[in-house]
Amino acid sequence: MSINTETGVGWIGTGVMGVAMCGHLLNSGFNVVVFNRTRSKAQPLIDAGATWASSPGDVAAVSEIVFTMVGFPGDVREVYFGAAGIMNRARPGSVLVDMTTTEPTLARELYVAAGRRGVAAVDAPVSGGDVGARNATLSVMVGGDEAAVERVMPLLRLMGRTIVRQGGPGSGQHAKMCNQIVIAGTMIGVCESMVYGYRAGLDMERVLQSINGGAAGCWTLNNLAPRIIRRDFEPGFYADHFVKDLGIALDEAGRMGLELPGLALARRLYERVQAQGHGAKGTQALFLALESMRSDAGQ
Amino acid sequence: MSINTETGVGWIGTGVMGVAMCGHLLNSGFNVVVFNRTRSKAQPLIDAGATWASSPGDVAAVSEIVFTMVGFPGDVREVYFGAAGIMNRARPGSVLVDMTTTEPTLARELYVAAGRRGVAAVDAPVSGGDVGARNATLSVMVGGDEAAVERVMPLLRLMGRTIVRQGGPGSGQHAKMCNQIVIAGTMIGVCESMVYGYRAGLDMERVLQSINGGAAGCWTLNNLAPRIIRRDFEPGFYADHFVKDLGIALDEAGRMGLELPGLALARRLYERVQAQGHGAKGTQALFLALESMRSDAGQ
Repeated sequence: MSINTETGVGWIGTGVMGVAMCGHLLNSGFNVVVFNRTRSKAQPLIDAGATWASSPGDVAAVSEIVFTMVGFPGDVREVYFGAAGIMNRARPGSVLVDMTTTEPTLARELYVAAGRRGVAAVDAPVSGGDVGARNATLSVMVGGDEAAVERVMPLLRLMGRTIVRQGGPGSGQHAKMCNQIVIAGTMIGVCESMVYGYRAGLDMERVLQSINGGAAGCWTLNNLAPRIIRRDFEPGFYADHFVKDLGIALDEAGRMGLELPGLALARRLYERVQAQGHGAKGTQALFLALESMRSDAGQ
Repeated sequence: MSINTETGVGWIGTGVMGVAMCGHLLNSGFNVVVFNRTRSKAQPLIDAGATWASSPGDVAAVSEIVFTMVGFPGDVREVYFGAAGIMNRARPGSVLVDMTTTEPTLARELYVAAGRRGVAAVDAPVSGGDVGARNATLSVMVGGDEAAVERVMPLLRLMGRTIVRQGGPGSGQHAKMCNQIVIAGTMIGVCESMVYGYRAGLDMERVLQSINGGAAGCWTLNNLAPRIIRRDFEPGFYADHFVKDLGIALDEAGRMGLELPGLALARRLYERVQAQGHGAKGTQALFLALESMRSDAGQ
């Protein structure tokens, strides 16, 4: 499929992920208008040819497709619904694509608000981290009306390798929550296993040799266990951000009348990670929180 | 390394795993003496050339290396310490290899008792299931004195692909517990994710497409999630056996003064699986237990 690079593209949110993702659009020849709360972080994109706009609304006013990749649900609300936000200025017929991991209910709210203005909204959170963003190997989980999703699909394909429409509005965010819930379980399993193994006096390198090819095999074991062995707790994915995601998933689960005790436990444990001052460490810092627990101390 | 098939080998426990594993020894030309509580299950091995003995002790009396692969820790105790058991009859200089998944402390007990008779004991639990046993692709986690482990290594290599000495007596069992603790976490993560996804109205096939290549990727997601989608809860690994393993791991953790809340949760949830009458289903029946929980009902 050839891509019409005449499409005016807007990009809001140029953190580590956003800079890399938007960079792929620029490299493919798109004219991109950018905004970020901290302008300096957008500089690499401006140097690469992007045009600066002074607010999210100003981006939306000149764009046919607007991407947002910001931090927390509160940031998404501000960027869309704030006084200088997207919603007041979005062009009829345009498509708004929120790639932030945020609440499925907020995604539906954006969809409804946009629809009232004759604007389409798509939720498209990603997994794959900064490496996936740089190498355009992200998995993008897409929710929204089929026609709108089709319009943005060629651009999403420039940013990732696995682009799947999950269903209607909000379903991209729900799929991302499915992803985070699995990770919550694997993190607990891997970190508890390592706490156990060390206490039992095992050489965890040898244990990994024995177990990573079998039914215990998982990305977390392959990628984070070796870091824990080196006591490297630097962030691939921030514990603070994971707590945000776990909170979203728990809230949504609660709204749906679900009890997910493993997910609830993960949040309690990650709040302990934060209480230990490791919120800005990687998710593997869960190991430190578990290591500090003793059965006589209670939970 | 050439193998001396003159070594007299004994095999006790000819369930699904044991028959396949012992079969590889027979196929390699070893003379094997077998015993099983239910004789009929040993018949395929007898047909293939194994000699029947009428008790574990009778096996031990004529064997230089004795393998045991039985069910529960209580069965291991009976087979080794019972009146007609191995310990009273084991030949000085022989090696006893327990491949049952059992308590690390029991493995050390066997080691000490064997040592008093001038007999070596090795713990060598496996992972890989019946498929791994049939195809000789098991992972074998080995604990014991180096010399004893070296003596049995060529035979273990006939049964598996990944044979790693973890350390001294009991360390094979501890490594197996590390394996089970990781699986406990991945099972909770995957099953809760699927309960969430279905309630959110997602097509779980599409969700798997989006998430199984990334940080949520794990054996459980690749192998058991598709079965859950088909609502196939037939056993690969029995929930009942997993409850046994979780109990062993929790007991050992308790002895070491560790609190492992994810592991404790896994046991509570799998006891619920049993209470629902699904103990003889596969571990993926955890999905059914979680599906039946509601947030208003409490846990």
